[in-house]
Amino acid sequence: MEYKKQVQRLIQEFKTDFLPSVSVDLVIFGFHDGQLKVLLLRWKNTEDWCLPGGRIRHEESLDDAAYRSLHGRTGLTEIFLQQFHTFGDTRRYVHFSQEQTMLRLGLAEEDLQEFSNRDVSVGYYALVEFANVVPTPDFFTDECRWWDINQVPPLLFDHNDMITLALKTLRRQLTYQPIGYNLLPEKFTMPDLQQLYETILGQSLDRRNFQKRMLGYDILERLEERKTGGAHKAPYLYRFDKEKYEKALADEILFVG
Amino acid sequence: MEYKKQVQRLIQEFKTDFLPSVSVDLVIFGFHDGQLKVLLLRWKNTEDWCLPGGRIRHEESLDDAAYRSLHGRTGLTEIFLQQFHTFGDTRRYVHFSQEQTMLRLGLAEEDLQEFSNRDVSVGYYALVEFANVVPTPDFFTDECRWWDINQVPPLLFDHNDMITLALKTLRRQLTYQPIGYNLLPEKFTMPDLQQLYETILGQSLDRRNFQKRMLGYDILERLEERKTGGAHKAPYLYRFDKEKYEKALADEILFVG
Repeated sequence: MEYKKQVQRLIQEFKTDFLPSVSVDLVIFGFHDGQLKVLLLRWKNTEDWCLPGGRIRHEESLDDAAYRSLHGRTGLTEIFLQQFHTFGDTRRYVHFSQEQTMLRLGLAEEDLQEFSNRDVSVGYYALVEFANVVPTPDFFTDECRWWDINQVPPLLFDHNDMITLALKTLRRQLTYQPIGYNLLPEKFTMPDLQQLYETILGQSLDRRNFQKRMLGYDILERLEERKTGGAHKAPYLYRFDKEKYEKALADEILFVG
Repeated sequence: MEYKKQVQRLIQEFKTDFLPSVSVDLVIFGFHDGQLKVLLLRWKNTEDWCLPGGRIRHEESLDDAAYRSLHGRTGLTEIFLQQFHTFGDTRRYVHFSQEQTMLRLGLAEEDLQEFSNRDVSVGYYALVEFANVVPTPDFFTDECRWWDINQVPPLLFDHNDMITLALKTLRRQLTYQPIGYNLLPEKFTMPDLQQLYETILGQSLDRRNFQKRMLGYDILERLEERKTGGAHKAPYLYRFDKEKYEKALADEILFVG
Protein backbone atom coordinates (compact mmCIF):
# COMPACT_ATOMS: atom_id res chain seq x y z
CA MET A 1 0.00 0.00 0.00
CA GLU A 2 1.42 3.33 -1.10
CA TYR A 3 0.46 5.20 2.08
CA LYS A 4 2.08 2.61 4.36
CA LYS A 5 5.27 2.79 2.30
CA GLN A 6 5.37 6.53 2.73
CA VAL A 7 4.93 6.12 6.49
CA GLN A 8 7.81 3.63 6.58
CA ARG A 9 10.05 5.99 4.62
CA LEU A 10 9.28 8.86 6.99
CA ILE A 11 9.93 6.73 10.07
CA GLN A 12 13.27 5.69 8.59
CA GLU A 13 14.14 9.35 7.92
CA PHE A 14 13.30 10.27 11.52
CA LYS A 15 15.86 7.72 12.67
CA THR A 16 18.67 8.71 10.33
CA ASP A 17 18.28 12.40 9.47
CA PHE A 18 16.81 14.03 12.59
CA LEU A 19 17.90 14.67 16.18
CA PRO A 20 16.28 12.13 18.50
CA SER A 21 14.23 13.18 21.54
CA VAL A 22 13.83 16.86 20.69
CA SER A 23 11.26 18.63 18.50
CA VAL A 24 9.63 22.03 17.88
CA ASP A 25 5.99 23.13 18.22
CA LEU A 26 4.49 26.34 16.87
CA VAL A 27 1.76 28.52 18.33
CA ILE A 28 0.80 30.66 15.34
CA PHE A 29 -1.57 33.44 16.41
CA GLY A 30 -3.62 35.08 13.68
CA PHE A 31 -5.01 38.60 14.05
CA HIS A 32 -7.61 40.15 11.78
CA ASP A 33 -10.06 42.93 12.50
CA GLY A 34 -10.49 42.44 16.23
CA GLN A 35 -10.26 38.64 16.21
CA LEU A 36 -7.45 36.50 17.59
CA LYS A 37 -7.11 32.93 16.33
CA VAL A 38 -4.63 30.07 16.51
CA LEU A 39 -3.65 27.63 13.76
CA LEU A 40 -4.37 23.95 14.46
CA LEU A 41 -3.98 20.64 12.63
CA ARG A 42 -6.33 17.62 12.67
CA TRP A 43 -4.69 14.18 12.63
CA LYS A 44 -5.61 11.87 9.78
CA ASN A 45 -8.88 9.95 10.25
CA THR A 46 -9.54 11.45 13.70
CA GLU A 47 -11.16 14.41 15.39
CA ASP A 48 -7.96 15.08 17.37
CA TRP A 49 -6.32 18.47 16.98
CA CYS A 50 -2.81 19.64 17.78
CA LEU A 51 -0.31 22.41 17.07
CA PRO A 52 1.93 22.42 13.99
CA GLY A 53 5.49 21.29 14.64
CA GLY A 54 8.30 19.05 13.54
CA ARG A 55 11.72 17.62 14.13
CA ILE A 56 15.21 19.05 13.70
CA ARG A 57 17.59 17.80 11.03
CA HIS A 58 21.13 16.97 12.11
CA GLU A 59 22.60 19.76 10.00
CA GLU A 60 19.82 22.26 10.78
CA SER A 61 19.63 24.83 13.56
CA LEU A 62 16.70 24.82 15.98
CA ASP A 63 15.42 28.13 14.57
CA ASP A 64 15.66 26.88 10.98
CA ALA A 65 13.61 23.82 11.89
CA ALA A 66 10.91 26.08 13.36
CA TYR A 67 10.89 28.32 10.25
CA ARG A 68 10.71 25.28 7.96
CA SER A 69 7.61 24.12 9.81
CA LEU A 70 6.07 27.64 9.80
CA HIS A 71 6.61 27.92 6.05
CA GLY A 72 5.15 24.48 5.40
CA ARG A 73 1.92 25.21 7.28
CA THR A 74 1.36 28.86 6.33
CA GLY A 75 3.38 29.71 3.20
CA LEU A 76 4.91 32.59 5.19
CA THR A 77 8.63 33.27 5.30
CA GLU A 78 9.31 36.76 6.62
CA ILE A 79 7.55 36.38 9.95
CA PHE A 80 9.22 36.86 13.31
CA LEU A 81 9.16 33.62 15.31
CA GLN A 82 9.74 33.97 19.03
CA GLN A 83 10.96 31.06 21.12
CA PHE A 84 9.04 31.14 24.39
CA HIS A 85 9.49 27.94 26.42
CA THR A 86 10.76 24.38 26.22
CA PHE A 87 8.44 21.65 27.42
CA GLY A 88 9.94 18.57 29.04
CA ASP A 89 7.52 17.03 31.53
CA THR A 90 7.61 13.26 31.70
CA ARG A 91 3.82 13.18 31.40
CA ARG A 92 3.59 15.27 28.23
CA TYR A 93 2.40 12.24 26.21
CA VAL A 94 0.12 10.76 28.81
CA HIS A 95 -3.05 11.22 26.75
CA PHE A 96 -1.53 9.73 23.65
CA SER A 97 -2.09 5.99 23.61
CA GLN A 98 -0.13 3.70 21.34
CA GLU A 99 -3.25 1.98 20.03
CA GLN A 100 -4.65 5.25 18.79
CA THR A 101 -1.39 6.00 17.04
CA MET A 102 -1.43 2.68 15.21
CA LEU A 103 -5.02 3.11 14.19
CA ARG A 104 -4.42 6.58 12.89
CA LEU A 105 -1.20 6.30 11.04
CA GLY A 106 -0.88 2.65 10.10
CA LEU A 107 2.46 2.26 11.89
CA ALA A 108 4.17 -1.08 12.37
CA GLU A 109 4.44 -2.17 15.99
CA GLU A 110 8.23 -1.77 16.08
CA ASP A 111 7.85 1.87 15.04
CA LEU A 112 5.55 2.86 17.88
CA GLN A 113 8.50 3.69 20.12
CA GLU A 114 9.50 6.45 17.72
CA PHE A 115 6.14 8.17 18.28
CA SER A 116 5.31 7.45 21.89
CA ASN A 117 8.59 8.27 23.67
CA ARG A 118 8.70 11.61 25.41
CA ASP A 119 10.34 14.32 23.36
CA VAL A 120 11.54 17.58 24.80
CA SER A 121 9.77 20.18 22.66
CA VAL A 122 10.83 23.76 22.05
CA GLY A 123 7.83 26.10 21.73
CA TYR A 124 7.80 29.07 19.35
CA TYR A 125 5.06 31.60 18.71
CA ALA A 126 4.32 34.01 15.91
CA LEU A 127 1.66 36.65 15.37
CA VAL A 128 0.46 37.08 11.78
CA GLU A 129 -2.30 38.78 9.82
CA PHE A 130 -4.42 35.73 9.14
CA ALA A 131 -5.80 36.98 5.83
CA ASN A 132 -2.24 36.42 4.44
CA VAL A 133 -1.99 32.76 5.40
CA VAL A 134 -2.73 29.67 3.31
CA PRO A 135 -3.26 26.93 5.97
CA THR A 136 -1.76 23.66 4.71
CA PRO A 137 -1.87 20.26 6.45
CA ASP A 138 1.22 18.03 6.63
CA PHE A 139 1.64 14.33 5.91
CA PHE A 140 0.08 13.11 9.16
CA THR A 141 -2.89 15.49 9.15
CA ASP A 142 -6.09 15.93 7.15
CA GLU A 143 -6.92 19.52 7.95
CA CYS A 144 -5.25 22.77 8.95
CA ARG A 145 -7.35 25.74 10.00
CA TRP A 146 -7.81 28.72 12.33
CA TRP A 147 -9.61 28.39 15.65
CA ASP A 148 -10.84 31.32 17.68
CA ILE A 149 -8.57 31.70 20.73
CA ASN A 150 -11.58 31.33 23.05
CA GLN A 151 -12.85 28.17 21.35
CA VAL A 152 -9.76 25.96 21.22
CA PRO A 153 -10.78 22.30 21.77
CA PRO A 154 -8.90 19.90 24.08
CA LEU A 155 -5.68 19.21 22.15
CA LEU A 156 -3.26 16.28 22.02
CA PHE A 157 -0.23 16.16 24.33
CA ASP A 158 0.42 19.37 26.35
CA HIS A 159 -0.59 21.63 23.48
CA ASN A 160 -3.32 23.51 25.39
CA ASP A 161 -0.68 24.45 27.98
CA MET A 162 1.58 25.62 25.17
CA ILE A 163 -1.08 28.00 23.85
CA THR A 164 -1.77 29.37 27.34
CA LEU A 165 1.90 30.11 27.98
CA ALA A 166 2.49 31.50 24.48
CA LEU A 167 -0.40 33.93 24.96
CA LYS A 168 0.95 34.99 28.35
CA THR A 169 4.36 35.59 26.78
CA LEU A 170 2.88 37.53 23.87
CA ARG A 171 0.98 39.74 26.33
CA ARG A 172 4.15 40.34 28.30
CA GLN A 173 5.96 41.21 25.07
CA LEU A 174 3.60 44.19 24.71
CA THR A 175 5.29 45.69 27.78
CA TYR A 176 8.77 45.88 26.27
CA GLN A 177 8.52 45.63 22.49
CA PRO A 178 6.36 47.40 19.91
CA ILE A 179 3.81 45.34 18.01
CA GLY A 180 1.61 45.99 15.01
CA TYR A 181 3.90 46.13 12.02
CA ASN A 182 2.62 43.61 9.42
CA LEU A 183 -0.64 43.35 11.37
CA LEU A 184 -2.20 46.72 10.54
CA PRO A 185 -2.57 48.50 7.19
CA GLU A 186 0.28 50.90 6.39
CA LYS A 187 -1.87 53.81 7.62
CA PHE A 188 -4.04 53.28 10.68
CA THR A 189 -5.86 55.20 13.37
CA MET A 190 -5.15 55.18 17.10
CA PRO A 191 -8.42 53.22 17.65
CA ASP A 192 -7.13 50.58 15.17
CA LEU A 193 -3.94 50.19 17.19
CA GLN A 194 -5.86 50.13 20.45
CA GLN A 195 -8.14 47.41 19.08
CA LEU A 196 -5.06 45.30 18.27
CA TYR A 197 -3.76 45.64 21.84
CA GLU A 198 -7.18 44.99 23.34
CA THR A 199 -7.64 41.88 21.20
CA ILE A 200 -4.30 40.44 22.33
CA LEU A 201 -4.79 41.39 25.97
CA GLY A 202 -8.43 40.27 26.00
CA GLN A 203 -9.49 43.40 27.89
CA SER A 204 -10.39 46.98 27.14
CA LEU A 205 -7.95 49.83 27.77
CA ASP A 206 -8.36 53.45 28.72
CA ARG A 207 -8.24 55.50 25.50
CA ARG A 208 -6.27 58.47 26.82
CA ASN A 209 -3.67 56.45 28.72
CA PHE A 210 -3.19 54.19 25.72
CA GLN A 211 -2.64 57.10 23.35
CA LYS A 212 -0.24 58.79 25.76
CA ARG A 213 1.83 55.65 26.18
CA MET A 214 1.93 54.84 22.48
CA LEU A 215 3.05 58.36 21.56
CA GLY A 216 5.63 58.16 24.35
CA TYR A 217 7.34 55.24 22.60
CA ASP A 218 8.22 57.60 19.74
CA ILE A 219 7.68 54.99 17.03
CA LEU A 220 4.59 56.52 15.41
CA GLU A 221 4.43 59.21 12.77
CA ARG A 222 1.21 61.24 12.68
CA LEU A 223 0.15 62.01 9.12
CA GLU A 224 -1.49 65.23 7.97
CA GLU A 225 -4.48 63.34 6.57
CA ARG A 226 -7.37 62.04 8.63
CA LYS A 227 -9.37 58.91 8.06
CA THR A 228 -11.69 59.43 5.10
CA GLY A 229 -15.40 58.97 5.44
CA GLY A 230 -15.43 60.56 8.87
CA ALA A 231 -16.93 64.00 9.40
CA HIS A 232 -16.00 66.53 12.07
CA LYS A 233 -14.32 64.12 14.47
CA ALA A 234 -12.48 61.90 11.95
CA PRO A 235 -9.40 60.40 13.70
CA TYR A 236 -5.85 61.11 12.59
CA LEU A 237 -3.96 58.53 10.56
CA TYR A 238 -0.60 57.23 11.79
CA ARG A 239 2.10 55.02 10.42
CA PHE A 240 5.07 53.32 12.05
CA ASP A 241 8.44 55.00 11.70
CA LYS A 242 10.15 51.83 10.48
CA GLU A 243 13.62 52.83 11.66
CA LYS A 244 12.53 53.78 15.18
CA TYR A 245 10.28 50.73 15.33
CA GLU A 246 13.17 48.40 14.49
CA LYS A 247 15.35 50.16 17.04
CA ALA A 248 12.71 49.76 19.75
CA LEU A 249 12.36 46.07 18.85
CA ALA A 250 16.10 45.54 19.24
CA ASP A 251 16.64 47.73 22.31
CA GLU A 252 13.57 46.69 24.27
CA ILE A 253 12.05 49.20 26.63
CA LEU A 254 13.49 48.42 30.02
CA PHE A 255 12.48 49.77 33.39
CA VAL A 256 15.38 51.95 34.53
CA GLY A 257 13.88 53.59 37.58
CA MET B 1 43.12 2.50 35.42
CA GLU B 2 40.31 3.39 37.82
CA TYR B 3 39.62 6.80 36.33
CA LYS B 4 39.27 5.41 32.80
CA LYS B 5 36.84 2.79 34.05
CA GLN B 6 34.71 5.49 35.64
CA VAL B 7 34.67 7.41 32.36
CA GLN B 8 33.58 4.28 30.51
CA ARG B 9 30.79 3.67 32.99
CA LEU B 10 29.54 7.23 32.65
CA ILE B 11 29.61 7.06 28.85
CA GLN B 12 27.62 3.85 29.00
CA GLU B 13 25.08 5.50 31.32
CA PHE B 14 24.70 8.43 28.93
CA LYS B 15 23.71 5.98 26.22
CA THR B 16 21.23 3.94 28.23
CA ASP B 17 19.76 6.20 30.93
CA PHE B 18 19.59 9.69 29.42
CA LEU B 19 17.76 11.42 26.56
CA PRO B 20 20.08 11.77 23.58
CA SER B 21 20.74 15.11 21.87
CA VAL B 22 19.29 17.37 24.58
CA SER B 23 20.87 18.79 27.74
CA VAL B 24 20.55 21.62 30.28
CA ASP B 25 22.96 24.43 31.15
CA LEU B 26 22.74 26.68 34.20
CA VAL B 27 23.65 30.35 34.55
CA ILE B 28 23.81 30.76 38.33
CA PHE B 29 24.16 34.42 39.24
CA GLY B 30 25.46 35.19 42.72
CA PHE B 31 24.69 38.49 44.45
CA HIS B 32 26.41 39.72 47.58
CA ASP B 33 26.87 43.26 48.83
CA GLY B 34 26.89 45.08 45.51
CA GLN B 35 28.70 42.39 43.53
CA LEU B 36 27.26 40.18 40.78
CA LYS B 37 29.06 36.93 39.96
CA VAL B 38 28.47 33.81 37.92
CA LEU B 39 29.37 30.21 38.81
CA LEU B 40 31.81 28.45 36.44
CA LEU B 41 33.52 25.06 36.21
CA ARG B 42 37.04 24.27 35.01
CA TRP B 43 37.49 21.06 32.99
CA LYS B 44 39.94 18.50 34.35
CA ASN B 45 43.60 19.17 33.51
CA THR B 46 42.80 22.31 31.49
CA GLU B 47 42.35 26.06 31.85
CA ASP B 48 39.00 25.85 30.02
CA TRP B 49 35.90 27.08 31.83
CA CYS B 50 32.22 26.45 31.18
CA LEU B 51 28.79 26.64 32.79
CA PRO B 52 27.41 23.88 35.02
CA GLY B 53 24.93 21.58 33.30
CA GLY B 54 23.93 18.05 32.59
CA ARG B 55 21.71 15.57 30.81
CA ILE B 56 18.11 14.51 31.35
CA ARG B 57 17.20 11.02 32.57
CA HIS B 58 14.51 9.16 30.64
CA GLU B 59 12.16 9.19 33.64
CA GLU B 60 13.05 12.75 34.71
CA SER B 61 11.42 16.02 33.75
CA LEU B 62 13.47 18.80 32.18
CA ASP B 63 13.02 20.98 35.28
CA ASP B 64 14.06 18.14 37.61
CA ALA B 65 17.25 17.63 35.60
CA ALA B 66 18.07 21.32 35.97
CA TYR B 67 17.41 21.24 39.73
CA ARG B 68 19.52 18.10 40.12
CA SER B 69 22.43 19.89 38.48
CA LEU B 70 21.87 23.06 40.55
CA HIS B 71 21.87 21.04 43.75
CA GLY B 72 25.01 19.14 42.77
CA ARG B 73 27.03 22.28 42.08
CA THR B 74 25.73 24.56 44.86
CA GLY B 75 24.11 22.45 47.59
CA LEU B 76 20.99 24.62 47.16
CA THR B 77 17.50 23.21 46.80
CA GLU B 78 14.88 25.89 47.39
CA ILE B 79 16.02 28.27 44.71
CA PHE B 80 13.82 29.48 41.85
CA LEU B 81 15.26 28.35 38.51
CA GLN B 82 14.01 30.23 35.48
CA GLN B 83 14.17 28.69 32.02
CA PHE B 84 15.21 31.46 29.61
CA HIS B 85 16.18 30.09 26.18
CA THR B 86 17.02 26.91 24.31
CA PHE B 87 20.20 26.92 22.27
CA GLY B 88 20.29 24.89 19.07
CA ASP B 89 22.73 26.41 16.60
CA THR B 90 24.60 23.90 14.47
CA ARG B 91 27.87 25.68 15.30
CA ARG B 92 27.48 25.58 19.09
CA TYR B 93 30.38 23.12 19.40
CA VAL B 94 32.66 24.67 16.81
CA HIS B 95 35.39 25.57 19.31
CA PHE B 96 35.42 22.15 20.89
CA SER B 97 37.89 19.91 19.08
CA GLN B 98 37.84 16.15 19.47
CA GLU B 99 41.59 15.94 20.16
CA GLN B 100 41.24 18.24 23.15
CA THR B 101 38.37 16.13 24.47
CA MET B 102 40.45 12.96 24.30
CA LEU B 103 43.39 14.62 26.01
CA ARG B 104 41.23 15.96 28.78
CA LEU B 105 39.00 13.11 29.64
CA GLY B 106 40.80 9.99 28.49
CA LEU B 107 37.92 8.94 26.23
CA ALA B 108 38.16 6.03 23.81
CA GLU B 109 37.95 7.05 20.16
CA GLU B 110 34.56 5.37 19.68
CA ASP B 111 33.11 7.48 22.49
CA LEU B 112 34.06 10.83 21.00
CA GLN B 113 30.81 11.00 19.07
CA GLU B 114 28.90 11.09 22.35
CA PHE B 115 30.68 14.29 23.33
CA SER B 116 31.19 16.11 20.05
CA ASN B 117 27.72 15.88 18.47
CA ARG B 118 25.59 18.96 18.74
CA ASP B 119 23.13 18.87 21.60
CA VAL B 120 20.17 21.19 21.86
CA SER B 121 20.63 22.76 25.29
CA VAL B 122 17.96 24.31 27.49
CA GLY B 123 19.31 27.30 29.44
CA TYR B 124 18.14 28.08 33.00
CA TYR B 125 19.20 30.90 35.28
CA ALA B 126 19.01 31.46 39.01
CA LEU B 127 19.93 34.37 41.27
CA VAL B 128 21.30 33.43 44.69
CA GLU B 129 23.02 35.01 47.67
CA PHE B 130 26.50 33.69 47.00
CA ALA B 131 27.53 33.54 50.65
CA ASN B 132 25.07 30.60 50.96
CA VAL B 133 26.63 28.48 48.21
CA VAL B 134 29.22 25.69 48.49
CA PRO B 135 30.66 25.50 44.93
CA THR B 136 31.33 21.84 44.07
CA PRO B 137 32.93 20.52 40.85
CA ASP B 138 31.48 17.48 39.05
CA PHE B 139 33.20 14.37 37.66
CA PHE B 140 34.61 16.05 34.57
CA THR B 141 35.85 19.20 36.30
CA ASP B 142 38.61 20.13 38.73
CA GLU B 143 37.30 23.42 40.05
CA CYS B 144 34.02 25.26 40.62
CA ARG B 145 34.06 28.93 41.59
CA TRP B 146 32.49 32.37 41.25
CA TRP B 147 33.66 34.82 38.59
CA ASP B 148 32.82 38.51 38.60
CA ILE B 149 30.21 39.14 35.87
CA ASN B 150 32.56 41.67 34.22
CA GLN B 151 35.57 39.32 34.22
CA VAL B 152 34.16 36.14 32.69
CA PRO B 153 36.84 34.47 30.50
CA PRO B 154 36.17 33.06 27.00
CA LEU B 155 34.15 29.90 27.75
CA LEU B 156 33.68 26.58 25.95
CA PHE B 157 30.83 26.12 23.46
CA ASP B 158 28.30 29.00 23.31
CA HIS B 159 28.39 29.58 27.06
CA ASN B 160 29.39 33.26 26.85
CA ASP B 161 26.28 33.86 24.73
CA MET B 162 24.22 32.02 27.33
CA ILE B 163 25.41 34.33 30.10
CA THR B 164 24.71 37.42 27.99
CA LEU B 165 21.15 36.34 27.24
CA ALA B 166 20.49 35.16 30.80
CA LEU B 167 21.55 38.56 32.13
CA LYS B 168 19.33 40.33 29.60
CA THR B 169 16.40 38.14 30.67
CA LEU B 170 17.09 38.71 34.36
CA ARG B 171 17.13 42.47 33.75
CA ARG B 172 13.84 42.24 31.88
CA GLN B 173 12.39 40.21 34.75
CA LEU B 174 12.84 43.27 36.97
CA THR B 175 10.16 44.99 34.89
CA TYR B 176 7.39 42.52 35.67
CA GLN B 177 8.34 40.51 38.77
CA PRO B 178 9.62 41.49 42.22
CA ILE B 179 13.13 40.44 43.16
CA GLY B 180 15.12 40.47 46.38
CA TYR B 181 13.60 37.82 48.60
CA ASN B 182 16.43 35.45 49.70
CA LEU B 183 18.98 37.99 48.45
CA LEU B 184 18.64 40.66 51.14
CA PRO B 185 18.55 40.30 54.94
CA GLU B 186 15.03 40.02 56.40
CA LYS B 187 15.08 43.75 57.20
CA PHE B 188 16.70 46.09 54.73
CA THR B 189 16.76 49.75 53.75
CA MET B 190 15.58 51.29 50.49
CA PRO B 191 19.26 51.98 49.56
CA ASP B 192 19.99 48.23 50.07
CA LEU B 193 17.20 47.34 47.66
CA GLN B 194 18.30 50.01 45.20
CA GLN B 195 21.85 48.66 45.30
CA LEU B 196 20.52 45.21 44.37
CA TYR B 197 18.68 46.60 41.35
CA GLU B 198 21.65 48.74 40.31
CA THR B 199 24.01 45.77 40.57
CA ILE B 200 21.81 43.64 38.34
CA LEU B 201 21.12 46.43 35.86
CA GLY B 202 24.76 47.59 35.85
CA GLN B 203 23.70 51.24 36.06
CA SER B 204 22.67 53.76 38.70
CA LEU B 205 19.04 54.71 39.22
CA ASP B 206 17.32 57.87 40.37
CA ARG B 207 16.67 57.52 44.10
CA ARG B 208 13.24 59.17 44.21
CA ASN B 209 11.82 57.42 41.15
CA PHE B 210 13.10 54.10 42.43
CA GLN B 211 11.48 54.53 45.82
CA LYS B 212 8.20 55.66 44.28
CA ARG B 213 8.04 52.67 41.95
CA MET B 214 8.98 50.14 44.64
CA LEU B 215 6.34 51.45 47.03
CA GLY B 216 3.84 51.41 44.16
CA TYR B 217 4.25 47.63 43.83
CA ASP B 218 2.72 47.27 47.31
CA ILE B 219 4.98 44.38 48.32
CA LEU B 220 7.03 46.20 51.01
CA GLU B 221 6.15 46.74 54.62
CA ARG B 222 7.81 49.74 56.29
CA LEU B 223 8.85 48.98 59.86
CA GLU B 224 8.69 51.42 62.75
CA GLU B 225 12.40 50.99 63.48
CA ARG B 226 15.16 52.71 61.54
CA LYS B 227 18.56 51.34 60.69
CA THR B 228 20.68 51.39 63.87
CA GLY B 229 23.96 53.24 64.00
CA GLY B 230 22.58 56.14 61.97
CA ALA B 231 21.84 59.47 63.56
CA HIS B 232 19.27 62.04 62.48
CA LYS B 233 18.84 60.77 58.92
CA ALA B 234 18.93 57.00 59.55
CA PRO B 235 16.92 55.29 56.76
CA TYR B 236 13.77 53.31 57.47
CA LEU B 237 13.87 49.53 57.52
CA TYR B 238 11.57 47.52 55.28
CA ARG B 239 10.70 43.90 54.83
CA PHE B 240 8.86 42.05 52.10
CA ASP B 241 5.20 41.21 52.68
CA LYS B 242 5.62 37.54 51.76
CA GLU B 243 2.02 37.01 50.73
CA LYS B 244 1.87 40.05 48.44
CA TYR B 245 5.34 39.26 47.11
CA GLU B 246 4.29 35.74 46.12
CA LYS B 247 1.13 37.10 44.52
CA ALA B 248 3.11 39.64 42.48
CA LEU B 249 5.49 36.87 41.38
CA ALA B 250 2.60 34.76 40.16
CA ASP B 251 0.49 37.55 38.64
CA GLU B 252 3.26 39.49 36.96
CA ILE B 253 2.83 43.21 36.52
CA LEU B 254 1.44 43.67 33.05
CA PHE B 255 1.04 46.87 31.08
CA VAL B 256 -2.68 47.49 30.86
CA GLY B 257 -2.75 50.95 29.31
